[in-house]
Amino acid sequence: MKKFINDVGLVEEQMIQGMVKAYPQYLRKLDCGNVVVRAHKKEGRVALISGGGSGHEPAHGGFVGTGMLDGAVAGAVFTSPTPDQIYEGIKAVATDAGVLMVVKNYTGDVMNFEMAAEMAEMEGITVKHVVTNDDVAVKDSLYTIGRRGVAGTIFVHKIAGALAEAGGTLDEVRAVAQKVIDNVRTMGAAAGPCTVPAAGKPGFELAEDEMEVGIGIHGEPGTHRETMKTADETVDLLLAQILADLDYAGSEVAVMINGAGATPLMELFIINNRVADVLAEKGIKVYKTMVGEYMTSIEMQGFSISLLRLDNELKELLDAPADTPAWR
Amino acid sequence: MKKFINDVGLVEEQMIQGMVKAYPQYLRKLDCGNVVVRAHKKEGRVALISGGGSGHEPAHGGFVGTGMLDGAVAGAVFTSPTPDQIYEGIKAVATDAGVLMVVKNYTGDVMNFEMAAEMAEMEGITVKHVVTNDDVAVKDSLYTIGRRGVAGTIFVHKIAGALAEAGGTLDEVRAVAQKVIDNVRTMGAAAGPCTVPAAGKPGFELAEDEMEVGIGIHGEPGTHRETMKTADETVDLLLAQILADLDYAGSEVAVMINGAGATPLMELFIINNRVADVLAEKGIKVYKTMVGEYMTSIEMQGFSISLLRLDNELKELLDAPADTPAWR
Repeated sequence: MKKFINDVGLVEEQMIQGMVKAYPQYLRKLDCGNVVVRAHKKEGRVALISGGGSGHEPAHGGFVGTGMLDGAVAGAVFTSPTPDQIYEGIKAVATDAGVLMVVKNYTGDVMNFEMAAEMAEMEGITVKHVVTNDDVAVKDSLYTIGRRGVAGTIFVHKIAGALAEAGGTLDEVRAVAQKVIDNVRTMGAAAGPCTVPAAGKPGFELAEDEMEVGIGIHGEPGTHRETMKTADETVDLLLAQILADLDYAGSEVAVMINGAGATPLMELFIINNRVADVLAEKGIKVYKTMVGEYMTSIEMQGFSISLLRLDNELKELLDAPADTPAWR
Repeated sequence: MKKFINDVGLVEEQMIQGMVKAYPQYLRKLDCGNVVVRAHKKEGRVALISGGGSGHEPAHGGFVGTGMLDGAVAGAVFTSPTPDQIYEGIKAVATDAGVLMVVKNYTGDVMNFEMAAEMAEMEGITVKHVVTNDDVAVKDSLYTIGRRGVAGTIFVHKIAGALAEAGGTLDEVRAVAQKVIDNVRTMGAAAGPCTVPAAGKPGFELAEDEMEVGIGIHGEPGTHRETMKTADETVDLLLAQILADLDYAGSEVAVMINGAGATPLMELFIINNRVADVLAEKGIKVYKTMVGEYMTSIEMQGFSISLLRLDNELKELLDAPADTPAWR
């Protein structure tokens, strides 16, 4: 394992410290652990909190700031944060307007966020949650029952965060978060693995001419392996499955081409070139495109495509100002 | 070679097309080649143009937009754009206030940008230029006489771009660009190579326990190779050389932790954690920190540290609004 780290036991903490030291104008770290909250607490409006295992940077700490999240809880790499950690995060961001948790659909995350919510409710904090499950690749997987929550989660942070910032009630913010979840689909592929520092070796292996189609954000298996394809062929494979899952005909969409960590922008732009062409052919209008690293898998070589079907409400909230380290 | 591409001969063009399709609100591609300019031409003020070989994305096209560049010219991967291409770019962005070219110090780039400027001047366009050379690692290298221009170049785009946007004259914009160059220093390290698509194999090899200190942005050799060190030890090595080169004592600085392509944010934040601590110990005040991919080397595994010494003028221009695909 060749990484610029110091100690596998210190990876998460030194990463969060380095993030907070880079962005003190946005972020504050709680003393109790790897929980970051806004440097200036938002008052009187619904607070949004998210999180999950580390290794998906900039998710989720990079999306803490005006117009998006109020807090992010980071577990060990690819491991759910504990209920205690999440509970501390909820307490730190809570307002009288309540707290919405945005949880990716992994068994551990869902369980721990729910336990934390119960702890917080015993202290009189109103907590609701949504569960993201945008990955169309597989029905069940290594870490979850049902579909996995992946890069489309970032659209939930953005859009629900915008409504929270604008003063929406907890029920309204939750409803719009669920609306995003209902309208976003994602699928990815990988050509190379990632290495969890504490494990010290790659989580999976691929032959020199092989790729994993439908890969999860922890490197968990997708739909199948096949011979490495061109960028265009791979895009066509993924888009076909996304477009078969939800009726995008005649819609406007937001597109996210998300890099898994080691795939350079060069390739992500080549991928977007095909995505844009296919959507144009199908009469699906692209309203906004984002290309970059939003929900990574450490240094996995791969990418995902997310398509969010938009209406006027979602467009307006997507366009609302947001100021966080990683949104653009 | 395992990449999400279609054809090694189409990499540059499909990449630029994919970039422009992602960001039509910012970018327009010229018909004559891989040159991008602002979607809405800036008039009446100094135009800024930069460029170089492809493979450094988001540089330079990602920095075209309000408050930064007016145009970016992309050559083949790691190859200078031709004088003709640059000339077309200059003509497309030129205004009566003149054009400033920001050129990284590589022999081919400097020669071709200068030739293009001569061609433009014959058409009555006033063109001046600056040459960035922020890399403290080596005096001369594979591709250049003198120091190499690397990630610090992005600060030149930002600060000179801000003054151009604000209506500075060509001499003023050139002077502030030179001031940035005089005050910025960079050094990098790599743990793994990158593969130019047309070459089909990695540009260099490193043993499993080896890193290259002072690596260039094309993978060209640095000061030496040594046994892979921890993140903190590597930072200390690089910072020592940067701090020995320019007197930062008592200064305020902007810090850029630039990922080379395959090094995940996890590691870049751990690196920043050390950089912030060392600068604090030395009484050097961090005014702003940027962590991410600004000037990559395709999928090289590595990073660089840039320190820009600031005064009030540079701070104000650094903070001025900019709206481009990749600045944040």
